[in-house]
Amino acid sequence: MNVTVFEVGPRDGLQNEPRALSVARKIEFVNGLAASGLREIELGAFVRPDRIPQMKDTEKLYEALHAGKIRAPRANFWALVPNLRGLERAMESGATGIAVFTAASETFNRKNIGMSIADSLREFGKVVRHARAWGMQVRGYVSTVFECPYEGKIKPKAALKVIDGLADLGVQQISIGDTIGAATIQGVDAVIPAAIRAHGAKKLAVHFHDTRGTALAHTLRSLEHGIRIVDSSAGGLGGCPYAPGATGNLATEDLVFMLEGMGVKTGVNLRKLSEHSLAFHRKIGREISSRYLQAFAASRRR
Amino acid sequence: MNVTVFEVGPRDGLQNEPRALSVARKIEFVNGLAASGLREIELGAFVRPDRIPQMKDTEKLYEALHAGKIRAPRANFWALVPNLRGLERAMESGATGIAVFTAASETFNRKNIGMSIADSLREFGKVVRHARAWGMQVRGYVSTVFECPYEGKIKPKAALKVIDGLADLGVQQISIGDTIGAATIQGVDAVIPAAIRAHGAKKLAVHFHDTRGTALAHTLRSLEHGIRIVDSSAGGLGGCPYAPGATGNLATEDLVFMLEGMGVKTGVNLRKLSEHSLAFHRKIGREISSRYLQAFAASRRR
Repeated sequence: MNVTVFEVGPRDGLQNEPRALSVARKIEFVNGLAASGLREIELGAFVRPDRIPQMKDTEKLYEALHAGKIRAPRANFWALVPNLRGLERAMESGATGIAVFTAASETFNRKNIGMSIADSLREFGKVVRHARAWGMQVRGYVSTVFECPYEGKIKPKAALKVIDGLADLGVQQISIGDTIGAATIQGVDAVIPAAIRAHGAKKLAVHFHDTRGTALAHTLRSLEHGIRIVDSSAGGLGGCPYAPGATGNLATEDLVFMLEGMGVKTGVNLRKLSEHSLAFHRKIGREISSRYLQAFAASRRR
Repeated sequence: MNVTVFEVGPRDGLQNEPRALSVARKIEFVNGLAASGLREIELGAFVRPDRIPQMKDTEKLYEALHAGKIRAPRANFWALVPNLRGLERAMESGATGIAVFTAASETFNRKNIGMSIADSLREFGKVVRHARAWGMQVRGYVSTVFECPYEGKIKPKAALKVIDGLADLGVQQISIGDTIGAATIQGVDAVIPAAIRAHGAKKLAVHFHDTRGTALAHTLRSLEHGIRIVDSSAGGLGGCPYAPGATGNLATEDLVFMLEGMGVKTGVNLRKLSEHSLAFHRKIGREISSRYLQAFAASRRR
């Protein structure tokens, strides 16, 4: 069995860290991720730099990629694109893969991107059409699939409708997201098999947050249902576990450790990844969220 | 579906904390656990007080129980007993349930309790015989079932043989332990179904450590195999995640949150438990290991 680990650290991870990093530091981070065998890497976001300064260097990262400063001949890189303006920047940067994002919760969508779900799908319809015509790969995120911080539990039917809506736009991959780490096994069972029946497992990824410690359990259950693409963030970057409103991405190290223990092939060298993540966390002075990486760090101190 | 949560915080948890607590603090801790609905609670250990000062007050805790200072009319309490001397103390204290412990790893057993596996089973045979004759319930722990810090991976056959050996002694329940949090899904699949076939699920508990973040995933897989008793520790007490050689019990809050999300009945009031655990951690100045409890604490700060 093979599982694709979709590394979101450089975008979803760093975007949600309090401080912006230098371009050089980001390049170093991405190089280490690619060198450890990660093949799908979310590099940045073409969003407004005044709104999200952590992502303001995305053009420079693509420059580094084309100039060979990011050495990853076998990896695919992705950038988040919120609108047509973002898509223009992605095209000018030579991005080959983009991601659009909407939510299963009407309130979350309005607060997060200022649009209703229907409007966001219309807006992204244009983005996806242009991107596909340009030959880009397109990924679609659905956030708050299971629970919304404003609306509470989301009905599986409502979530599945948004997944269908994104699929209708022609995206090649849909990432099903538990944005606040409040999913449940019953929620996973209500959404994942139905989504697989409708769209096929090859088109679907899961994206769980570890806010309440359940990300790996929910990932395991999703794999048992047939999912073969899993989003995670090196070291668990993105949302400090001690901060109010913590998000807490599933850590790539925890995910790869579990997958290895299932006999699953990921192509990722866990030792190499852990050494790199550990060094990176030390350089940026960031506490380690990943349980596996904490144990790895402890074993290094002994 | 019902699952029994076996709370090991007052023993396995506090025994592995650096500082010993006062009897009053322990009584307060146990009362809160019982009030939140936990019905199986490991209270202490009749071990040498000079070796394990954290457990030196176990007699006093049983006194408090009999004097009605620990108010838990519906709970069963357990104490660890390493030998016949410990059993005498348990009897004198009026303990109704005891636990004995051995390991699936020869080297771990010799280093941990100074006996070979065979010798430990012989020694415990006497303890179990006397305890059963006295009308006590007996639980048996098998540690390092999946991996040993000295020997590495443990062969499933070797682990199953030790589980069989404990069952042959006449213990009523066997807890299958991943002492260093290095189990894998393949390991769980190799041991748990075979153990259930041999002894029945009613006789078996699982005891996973969250050292590498996999405790809930391994618990989920075990539940899927038919396990219905799970060990955990309030707040994740026992082994600081940042210390070298960290152990890190599965946190009761994380476990109950996952079980509730499966529609499983545990009898535990998660909000009540979380409030109690949080207050306890603040009083003893202990960092919170439980992911669920971290999120709960963050939501209280908002």
